Amino acid sequence: MGSEPHSLRTDAQQILTASLQAVQPDAAVRRALQDLSPSGGRILLVAAGKAAWQMARAALDCLGRVDEGIVITKYGHVRGELPGVTCYEAGHPVPDENSFAATARALALARSAGEGDTVLFLLSGGGSALFEQPRIPGAELQDITAQLLGCGADIVEMNTIRKRLSDVKGGRFALACAPAQVFSIVLSDIPGDPLDMIASGPACPDSSTCAEALAIAEKYRLRLSSRAAACLRQETPKQLTRVQTRITGSVRDLCAAAAAACRELGYQPVLLTDRLDCEAREAGRFLGAVARTHAGCGQALAFLAGGETVVHLTGRGLGGRNQELALAAAPALAGTNGAAVFSVGSDGTDGPTDAAGGYVDGDTLKSLTDRGWTVHAALADNDAYHALQAVGGLLFTGPTGTNVNDISVALVRG
Amino acid sequence: MGSEPHSLRTDAQQILTASLQAVQPDAAVRRALQDLSPSGGRILLVAAGKAAWQMARAALDCLGRVDEGIVITKYGHVRGELPGVTCYEAGHPVPDENSFAATARALALARSAGEGDTVLFLLSGGGSALFEQPRIPGAELQDITAQLLGCGADIVEMNTIRKRLSDVKGGRFALACAPAQVFSIVLSDIPGDPLDMIASGPACPDSSTCAEALAIAEKYRLRLSSRAAACLRQETPKQLTRVQTRITGSVRDLCAAAAAACRELGYQPVLLTDRLDCEAREAGRFLGAVARTHAGCGQALAFLAGGETVVHLTGRGLGGRNQELALAAAPALAGTNGAAVFSVGSDGTDGPTDAAGGYVDGDTLKSLTDRGWTVHAALADNDAYHALQAVGGLLFTGPTGTNVNDISVALVRG
Repeated sequence: MGSEPHSLRTDAQQILTASLQAVQPDAAVRRALQDLSPSGGRILLVAAGKAAWQMARAALDCLGRVDEGIVITKYGHVRGELPGVTCYEAGHPVPDENSFAATARALALARSAGEGDTVLFLLSGGGSALFEQPRIPGAELQDITAQLLGCGADIVEMNTIRKRLSDVKGGRFALACAPAQVFSIVLSDIPGDPLDMIASGPACPDSSTCAEALAIAEKYRLRLSSRAAACLRQETPKQLTRVQTRITGSVRDLCAAAAAACRELGYQPVLLTDRLDCEAREAGRFLGAVARTHAGCGQALAFLAGGETVVHLTGRGLGGRNQELALAAAPALAGTNGAAVFSVGSDGTDGPTDAAGGYVDGDTLKSLTDRGWTVHAALADNDAYHALQAVGGLLFTGPTGTNVNDISVALVRG
Repeated sequence: MGSEPHSLRTDAQQILTASLQAVQPDAAVRRALQDLSPSGGRILLVAAGKAAWQMARAALDCLGRVDEGIVITKYGHVRGELPGVTCYEAGHPVPDENSFAATARALALARSAGEGDTVLFLLSGGGSALFEQPRIPGAELQDITAQLLGCGADIVEMNTIRKRLSDVKGGRFALACAPAQVFSIVLSDIPGDPLDMIASGPACPDSSTCAEALAIAEKYRLRLSSRAAACLRQETPKQLTRVQTRITGSVRDLCAAAAAACRELGYQPVLLTDRLDCEAREAGRFLGAVARTHAGCGQALAFLAGGETVVHLTGRGLGGRNQELALAAAPALAGTNGAAVFSVGSDGTDGPTDAAGGYVDGDTLKSLTDRGWTVHAALADNDAYHALQAVGGLLFTGPTGTNVNDISVALVRG
């Protein structure tokens, strides 16, 4: 590679390192806690989700101590003792008895909170299964879920029903904390950060109504016990005045951090989207065309797209969505000087590979050709890993301990 | 539709009308002719391509008259007499005897030009077949083309050979005009405007060499007559000092005109690319995500993408690439207020339909659902036309008389 592309590559590496640091659960929790003003009473910690242990540890580091706390995370995810905090491991993605038992303890702790106390509620991906206390027997909950899936109910309809069958979802956990104040930090893994979707919103007012729930039950002729039917008629909280929420570590933060890193290196950042969700290789062709159009136009630009693209597996090669995206951009960039496209997964593992993503520039296509690769064949076999490996186009970070989707960047030097 | 989306729709219609007007052959020729300073001698006109007649008429309107002229266009494309100009119709996409005969007349006219004269050369899409004078018998030219296609030669290799087998391609027409000056106006229909690719560049210096041509003949073991072999050893012009070229009416102009129209309506335009070439529906999802991300962010923005997307036909419905692009953006926009995506083909006919393209906004998905349509099903059957028709989402312009690819816009109100 010539000196120009080499230095674009260095820039890409710096941008990705800076962006990933900013969305570590630790950094995200620290950032959010700057807004916390405890009211002087006890501080009780409840953390649920796949990053619960890490978030709890970051909070302890920041605050020095909590009065009492509970962590509920996935099996194998507790990495040591935390002072004053009891750690539970439970089932994910399917909740099990440990989920219910640990959630019962968390509810008891919440109900013990008094006026002037603060419940610090740390929520991350996986919370929906790990943090659950059904209001009906587990077997009936499973049956109703199966009925809804079987009749083609959409995710909004599913949630409208399930929130009413839970003691924690749909804002009910926050209700249980009253009269204490709730400070909720949500590590988002859903593009667009729909608060009531992340773990079904235990500390988020519910916008759905009993009338809607009953209409859905009627529409799909759901078979319900009298207890379940009664649940559907009990309203979820519509307002939660004592709850403060900070969404953090989301793909939006990832984009913002990447934009800041680009600006630092002299590129003018242009945020395209933080909810990219199309086919990975087509997103790559789109970003390749964007980079190609602006290459050599006299301005250093960085077009940013966060989100999570999709890959359809038709071949038997090795790769991931970020590697496919980058590889697909190579033809558009071919022969340009000063244009690159790269894409990485924030968890550091793109697909079933040890790479975080891929990088291509104006030299990549020729290097591939020289080594007997074509982009078309590599993509047809879903083998972006080996194609990029052959030309030094893989990006590595190691496991990062967070997962807030992916970031893709089209980098252009003036 | 509510008042907000309705007025976005009005904006979309205004933007597309203004953009298409700017890339009409007439407007494009008029714009380019502002740069012409005839040297006082005769003005000879040679126009070739599908828009040749229209371009010639526009030039006559502008200049008042020409001393002599030739138009070579597709059968059925001559729309009347032009004073001082002889109009020929010929074969396209396969050249026929009329192509060769008309081109021979044009060459004779060019060779009659003297010092101080100006050859006004107007080129548009289709010129490659319509404007041709082979240096070898037609049958052998066809045989060599078939050999190249059969052995998998790429387009660059094909053109390197074919330019040397022609009396007009690869800059040779401009050479025939010497010592007159040549003012060439090219109506581009290829993204990126590669001048030597548009009609194989009759007035464009050729960057390929005899050595390359002979290497290609060797590589594919082409069967060549001694006459054809001799042609490959004759160099094409590398410099053409008396030629001035204006590329106009290209997709770049289309993007620039759309950007100007957006600015006029209060949107800040952001050019993404003028060479979009990915799958239409994925480009739509990408642009939908872009619009969704910026909707309600306090800024009125217009993200522009020009180019030509592709559609893979798997269903038996009706549609075109612009309609598929727009329809695929509908889910991302659902429920937003003040965001829209639209896409149109500059020729006014998108696919085999009477619509120029499609428009969607925050209300479209619900309207589709209410009428029993799903985006997924409509795209799976390539039936975007009927889906958009059901919700008033088709855009019509009628045939526009030009073809400079498509323009897609994500429109966001602050």
